[in-house]
Formats: sequence, structure tokens, C-alpha cells
Amino acid sequence: MIECRTELRVRYAETDMMGVVYHANFLAWFEVGRTELLRQHGLPYRTLEDGGYRLPVLEAQAKYLRPALYDDMVVITTRLLDKPTVRIRLDYEVHARGQLLATGSTTHAFINAQGEPVKPPAAFSVRMNELFAAPGGG
Amino acid sequence: MIECRTELRVRYAETDMMGVVYHANFLAWFEVGRTELLRQHGLPYRTLEDGGYRLPVLEAQAKYLRPALYDDMVVITTRLLDKPTVRIRLDYEVHARGQLLATGSTTHAFINAQGEPVKPPAAFSVRMNELFAAPGGG
Amino acid sequence: MIECRTELRVRYAETDMMGVVYHANFLAWFEVGRTELLRQHGLPYRTLEDGGYRLPVLEAQAKYLRPALYDDMVVITTRLLDKPTVRIRLDYEVHARGQLLATGSTTHAFINAQGEPVKPPAAFSVRMNELFAAPGGG
Amino acid sequence: MIECRTELRVRYAETDMMGVVYHANFLAWFEVGRTELLRQHGLPYRTLEDGGYRLPVLEAQAKYLRPALYDDMVVITTRLLDKPTVRIRLDYEVHARGQLLATGSTTHAFINAQGEPVKPPAAFSVRMNELFAAPGGG
Repeated sequence: MIECRTELRVRYAETDMMGVVYHANFLAWFEVGRTELLRQHGLPYRTLEDGGYRLPVLEAQAKYLRPALYDDMVVITTRLLDKPTVRIRLDYEVHARGQLLATGSTTHAFINAQGEPVKPPAAFSVRMNELFAAPGGG
Repeated sequence: MIECRTELRVRYAETDMMGVVYHANFLAWFEVGRTELLRQHGLPYRTLEDGGYRLPVLEAQAKYLRPALYDDMVVITTRLLDKPTVRIRLDYEVHARGQLLATGSTTHAFINAQGEPVKPPAAFSVRMNELFAAPGGG
Repeated sequence: MIECRTELRVRYAETDMMGVVYHANFLAWFEVGRTELLRQHGLPYRTLEDGGYRLPVLEAQAKYLRPALYDDMVVITTRLLDKPTVRIRLDYEVHARGQLLATGSTTHAFINAQGEPVKPPAAFSVRMNELFAAPGGG
Repeated sequence: MIECRTELRVRYAETDMMGVVYHANFLAWFEVGRTELLRQHGLPYRTLEDGGYRLPVLEAQAKYLRPALYDDMVVITTRLLDKPTVRIRLDYEVHARGQLLATGSTTHAFINAQGEPVKPPAAFSVRMNELFAAPGGG
């Protein structure tokens, strides 16, 4: 498993008239989380796109347990639990004020600039093999 | 089952650098869909809020099959398949260019202005009883 | 002068915790207005982009007189007061509930797909010459 | 004059199909800038709202010189050039990649929770008097 923690401050723009963060914005926070996870593990997403790859969202889901509030410092924990195959699944937790606010997941697959499904870039596969190598393994 | 179809035009603001609509915006479109479903069935959400009720999202999920493009006329089909109990589940389909672009669902429960879970407002329950009355029934 | 009126329904996603529409969203509404103005006058923006042109915003400004509220039917009036030269200026008014909510303007110039300033596409210039021809002819 | 520099990382969600940040998002960044300016000078905006005050935007304008790109580290410089009176004007600069991307300004005035214009809260006025006291003065 690889994991990444990212912090962000809740913006006024992200709230709605219920006085809390609008639920769809958590999906944008998940994106912030996976961007940082990729960067911290040597695979900045901008470089992947510059190489002609795209990693669109195929599925997304979220459960909302407690509201996020304006000006909260929110911690997004992003986890890649399993070594990616054709599909890449990421799991997320959002915490603030010492509490779990939401959980979620997204599933992705690589496409090329024409929108056709493609195998992951070699650099991505090599890095994932390193990260998910059995610690006791040869 | 009750159902509602709503149309909207995709805005440039809703696209991202992949050249398609950013995935989180589908959740905002689902909200447009359920707002219209409630209005068409005599339960405008603004009236519910004016009465002190809120209907936050507890869970949301979406599957993305094909991209939505700038300037597309998108049709959102919103369905309430089952009579709501404490939880209200809505299902969504998004079509454009004669194709299914995405499906999704959200789950909701009523809270009061203090954020505490409450029973649905009486007008809501009465209307749901009418809408989901057995068609063969007296 | 050419003019276009467009209606839209205010989304919950567009509100903030002040209970009104977040001010930046008016700029997205201005974009809806100018998209419709171009379409109504035979110059759909998507066609301009397909032809390799982009029309980015160089300047934007807005004055906020009264709040826009959730579920309001908002009318955006977009005006091209002067025949475009290298710069294209559009003016906007936003009304709802019989009142003027906001005014604004944006200024644009054509660039190509590489981001370099270019002359307007020929179809655009021809159409503008028609639209701004002296009503008395010749 | 008081000044504040804030950094943020550009999100994919903030880009549009032109491949750059959608122009309206700069207004949300200006909000991030003024939130931090207020906090750094002992006047967190959340505290102002908790005290029953709101500080809506009356006017906003922006000039866009160069695009902001996905994953850029953007620096927002927020300046309060003049001691606020009934109106509060803030000026902004947005830099990235060693270049000025955009400038802008917003104008604000205090209202109460009912939306009526009010004088600034006493804590705000006292602090502004301190910050804008003549440096040579007693």
C-alpha cells in the first residue's frame, strides 16, 4: 500500500447555503489527494499528460459523515491499496477538527490523447512494480 | 416510480483541460435533476428549506461511460424508484448526442437547521404516499 | 448593437454560506450569455474553437447590486455595443425577481491554438460587418 | 499599506478546455488571498461572520496577462493600500513561473446577517487604526 497526506484550507467558494462545503467539492479534493500521491512517488500527473497520457475518472463515490466547514484545515489521506492493473483504484479519507468527515474512492484507466484505452506508460508500471514489490521478496 | 427529465447546456466553465466536462460537475447536474423532480411533484426544495428542513447528500456515486462535451445539450433523467423511508435514494442517467454518458445515485436524509436528523416534513410524506400509492388501490 | 437574453435557474452548487450566489459564478453566467449571443448570430463558439481559434478573457469586471438566490430564474442580457476591432467587449446585466442584480463586462481577443494573438476568423468579421452595417445602407 | 502573500497549487478542477485556468477561478483565489490577509492581521473572517457580520463583494475586476497552468504553484499577493472607510478595497497580483499572470481588485462593505449595511465591527476598526497609524506618529 502507498499513502499520501495532503492539507488544504476550505475556501468560502466551496461552501453552499447549507453553511457547509458543497458535496461535489470533495471529489475535487480527492483529485488534489491523488495528484500529491503521484507526485510524492515520482510520477507527477503533469508529466504523464505531457507524455500523451490521460487518467480519467471511470467511477467515483463518496460517503459524507460530517460537514466540512469554511476555513477548516482539511487533511486528505489518499491510498493506493492494490498494485494497479488495467484499472487503478484510489481510496480517500477526509479529516478535520480531529474527526473523519468523509470517505470515498475513484477508479481510473489510462487513455491516450485520442481517448482510446491504452496500457499504462512504462515509467508508471516500473514505479508501481517497485512500490508494490514484496518487502521480503528477492 | 417517479421520474423527471431536465435539460441543460454544458458550460465552458464545466470543462477541464482534458477537453471534456470535469467529473465532479456531474454531481452538480444530479442536483439540478433532483431539484426539478421535487418541483414537478409539488415539493420545491426551496419551500422545504424555508420550512426549516435540509436534505443533505449522505452518499453519492457516479459511473462515467463517455465524456460530456462543451455546448452539448445534456438530458438528466432522475428517478425515485422506491418510496422514501428515513433515507431517500435517487438514481440518475445523463445522456447527450443520443448516448448514455453517465449513471449515478445519491442518498439523502432530512435534517433540521441545527443539523439534527428529523422525520420528513408532513407535506413530503403525504405527497410520497400519494405518488407511491398502489395503482390498483382504492 | 446586438443583444441576447438568456435564462438560467440558479443551482444550489452556485450558492455559498452567505445564502446567496457566490460572486465568481456571475462570471460563468456572463460566459453563458456570450455563448448564446454568438450562437444566435450564427457564430457558435464551438465552431470557432473547431476552426483553431480561442477567445480568452483579457479583462472582466462585475458590480453586485443585489444577491442572486437559489432557485431564482435569472435573465442574463448580453450586449455587443460596438463593432469588434482587435478587441471584443461585451456588456452584461443580470436580472431576477424584477430587479437588476448585477452588471459587468468582459474584453476578449482572438488567439490561435498556440496562444498567439491572431486576427478574427473571416466568418466572424464578415458577420460583424453585416450586423453592424449602417441601417440606412451604403 | 498592509500586504499578504499566499501560495496555492493549481487544481485540475480549475482548468478548462483551453488548457489553462478558467478565468472566474481567479476571483476565488483573490478570496483565498484576502482571507489570509485578514487572518495574518488578527481578524479571521470566520470570527467576523460568527459575530454577525458579512463582507460581500460589491465590485470585482481582473486583468489576465498570462495563463495559469495546471499544477503551477501560484503566489497571490493581496494588498490593502488604504485604510478602509465604509468601503474596503483590496488589490491582488497573481504570479507563477516568475511571471505576473493577473491583477485584480475587489471592493467590499460590511452588512449584518439580515443583509443591511452596517458600520465595521469595532475590533476591525481598532485594528485598522493600528495598522494604518502614521509610522512617525505617537
